[in-house]
Amino acid sequence: MKEIPYKIYLEESEMPKAWYNLRADMKNKPAPLLDSKTLKPITAEELSKVFCDELVKQELDDTTPYFDIPQEIYDFYKMYRPSPLVRAYCLEERLQTPAKIYYKFEGNNTSGSHKLNSAIAQAYYAKKQGLKGVTTETGAGQWGTALSMACSYFELDCKVYMVKVSYEQKPFRREVMRTYGASVTPSPSMETAVGRKILEAHPGTTGSLGCAISEAVEVATQTEGYRYVLGSVLNQVLLHQTVIGLETKTALDKYDIKPDIIIGCAGGGSNLGGLISPFMGEKIRGEADYRIIGVEPASCPSFTRGTYAYDYCDTGMVCPLQKMYTLGSGFIPASTHSGGLRYHGMSSTLSQLYHDGLMDVVSVHQTEVFEAAQKFAKVEGILPAPESSHAIKVAIDEAMKCKETGEEKTIVFGLTGTGYFDMMAYEKFNDKKMQDYTPSDEELQAALKNLPKF
Amino acid sequence: MKEIPYKIYLEESEMPKAWYNLRADMKNKPAPLLDSKTLKPITAEELSKVFCDELVKQELDDTTPYFDIPQEIYDFYKMYRPSPLVRAYCLEERLQTPAKIYYKFEGNNTSGSHKLNSAIAQAYYAKKQGLKGVTTETGAGQWGTALSMACSYFELDCKVYMVKVSYEQKPFRREVMRTYGASVTPSPSMETAVGRKILEAHPGTTGSLGCAISEAVEVATQTEGYRYVLGSVLNQVLLHQTVIGLETKTALDKYDIKPDIIIGCAGGGSNLGGLISPFMGEKIRGEADYRIIGVEPASCPSFTRGTYAYDYCDTGMVCPLQKMYTLGSGFIPASTHSGGLRYHGMSSTLSQLYHDGLMDVVSVHQTEVFEAAQKFAKVEGILPAPESSHAIKVAIDEAMKCKETGEEKTIVFGLTGTGYFDMMAYEKFNDKKMQDYTPSDEELQAALKNLPKF
Repeated sequence: MKEIPYKIYLEESEMPKAWYNLRADMKNKPAPLLDSKTLKPITAEELSKVFCDELVKQELDDTTPYFDIPQEIYDFYKMYRPSPLVRAYCLEERLQTPAKIYYKFEGNNTSGSHKLNSAIAQAYYAKKQGLKGVTTETGAGQWGTALSMACSYFELDCKVYMVKVSYEQKPFRREVMRTYGASVTPSPSMETAVGRKILEAHPGTTGSLGCAISEAVEVATQTEGYRYVLGSVLNQVLLHQTVIGLETKTALDKYDIKPDIIIGCAGGGSNLGGLISPFMGEKIRGEADYRIIGVEPASCPSFTRGTYAYDYCDTGMVCPLQKMYTLGSGFIPASTHSGGLRYHGMSSTLSQLYHDGLMDVVSVHQTEVFEAAQKFAKVEGILPAPESSHAIKVAIDEAMKCKETGEEKTIVFGLTGTGYFDMMAYEKFNDKKMQDYTPSDEELQAALKNLPKF
Repeated sequence: MKEIPYKIYLEESEMPKAWYNLRADMKNKPAPLLDSKTLKPITAEELSKVFCDELVKQELDDTTPYFDIPQEIYDFYKMYRPSPLVRAYCLEERLQTPAKIYYKFEGNNTSGSHKLNSAIAQAYYAKKQGLKGVTTETGAGQWGTALSMACSYFELDCKVYMVKVSYEQKPFRREVMRTYGASVTPSPSMETAVGRKILEAHPGTTGSLGCAISEAVEVATQTEGYRYVLGSVLNQVLLHQTVIGLETKTALDKYDIKPDIIIGCAGGGSNLGGLISPFMGEKIRGEADYRIIGVEPASCPSFTRGTYAYDYCDTGMVCPLQKMYTLGSGFIPASTHSGGLRYHGMSSTLSQLYHDGLMDVVSVHQTEVFEAAQKFAKVEGILPAPESSHAIKVAIDEAMKCKETGEEKTIVFGLTGTGYFDMMAYEKFNDKKMQDYTPSDEELQAALKNLPKF
């Protein structure tokens, strides 16, 4: 058996040439998007008012198994991909576990995360369609940063609505976006009808992804030559993010490694979906079996405490409806929650998989997440993003179980990004001022009151 | 000829097994360090009060051409090395230059720079000697971050004196250091005799590397089980940093690439020295010829406007004296200067090479440096550190000369790190509030008044 290096880097020629569309292999397909007015399945024509035409095709197609990666995107990928699959030798040593731990590290680019994989694809299709620009929302700012980089590369205008709490707590991400030429507006803002309405109903709100989406969609649909782009949740995004899972699988195969457990953090599902897709495909087709674990914050527990139902994707109810695990479009995580992954809903693809019992989900508290992050940083030399650290926490837990049982399981997790712009959260943690929060049943019940009635 | 990928990654097995000691090949050796009291060449015994024993050997040895890299350091290197040598295809395309541009990227680790290469070596030797901890100074915070990571790995105590202006402007780096378990004190501080003296003489000073060094040395020499470590200037640091140049050379050789021009930014000289050493060795031995260019800020122009003389390495005059290009140990760069590279002196090895006409040095203004940084970021997808951007600026200038002449020169530059913790400087640039500064001849003359008299 070949000796396994610390970092497995593929050759450029081994990078995937096509994205993998997991839906083509799913027995139960994700439910279709519904028009928010008619409550009927939305047509490509309707959807193309919001998204670029090519992206609409990708969004609605649940039968084509592969989509070729256009050369222009492939060339951009080559600037920061293939990303390394790292053997966490030092972490294993520190934990004294017989488990073998690997992580796919997506943080080696200026956006600091995997988000760039879809940003460049969405910017490319917008450019190809001859658009002037795109609008989007961003939470922690990873997606906005990624999109600003992608737009700058293709010389597209980029308008970002940034959740107010992040805009204020993370001014440096705003400056990265500005350096790449994007305009950044704190959300909710007075620039849009929906923003004004939300501010009137909730003065002093620190915002949410749901609000910011509504604003970005409003501007995109009402400005000539603009479309809206989104960094997670959507099928098209999961499709682009399969580059993560495909590279991971190629790297593992190269060294004849069969993972037992695959772990990813889940906010809207872009990383988790992208990482697990090729493995889930094998599982569905009966070619292999894996334990697949999504990890979400206990303070925003869409999977583990949400409802599987059609819901609005945004607070302003301007987007199509999606069937998903949801906390209700009015849900806003507690302001003490610093760990990212703040979206009220979840990818419809992942929701269907979870509903069908094909994956597990675990919820974790932010303090234990930061403890895991620090432990990881000290031995693996990477200060992880709070989001990614959810996966680290559960990977360490699983490795410690192996220590108890003596099992030599192979654990693969997604390290989606770095925490360099999250130092205010780390400061809270260092000062021992971080608080955990679990929403009450009543709170969750109240947030569901806006679920659409059929 | 093999097709050259975007990123040349060496195999782990191709990583250098030994550091290269350029001094062994130099015809004119760097002048010896002098004891600051006797003004005689300092002995190993005297020096070992400040530095670990093994590092003293490396510091003083100018005849041994190679030092083996200990296995423990090699294992740590494998976590983030080999670093990629990147072909800047996108930058070339944007500039429409026939030049071929490569950069060695050292920013893919949490310290954000090449500083980790020496930090882990110095921490290792301290651990091996059975010390409790180390002290150091840090400017922008890259070195302090690197050292805190290295100390955390070997479970050593780490006390960092951080130049006050950076401590205040870059609170996030402080939190990274704290997350890795270091203590961080703004310098000058009231904790040390030298700090109190400096504060008395210059109340309200925003500090300098020279002050912070004095404080760190004072604490190291007066605390049982502690030694001082330094991130640049010293021979030992340049030695460790040759891992950059050696990897670069191996990667170039692998694809039969002969560089014409090699460019690095210079503050104290750690990156420049590390990058150029193997190439300079060939040049000295007459095996190859390269144009080697150091780049420094016009506001802190040690090489281009300094004096070649013995000088103090620190403001408090507690360190040994070094013969180098210096602006005088009392020189403090203008507070409008945000671009890093703030040290008043320069590596004695590089000083000797420059004095002997073996390399060129160019000084550049910070606004043009940030313009180059932004241009680079937009096409190459990496937001560079201000320090590294000095090299980018000159690499672009050289590439544009090639465009005029039609020459297909091969340019290699060192991209020492990322700018993720420098967003306040980028904000100034984005807001068009960045100012250039050139010290007057009178100012420089005044700063030299403390030069030691013989």
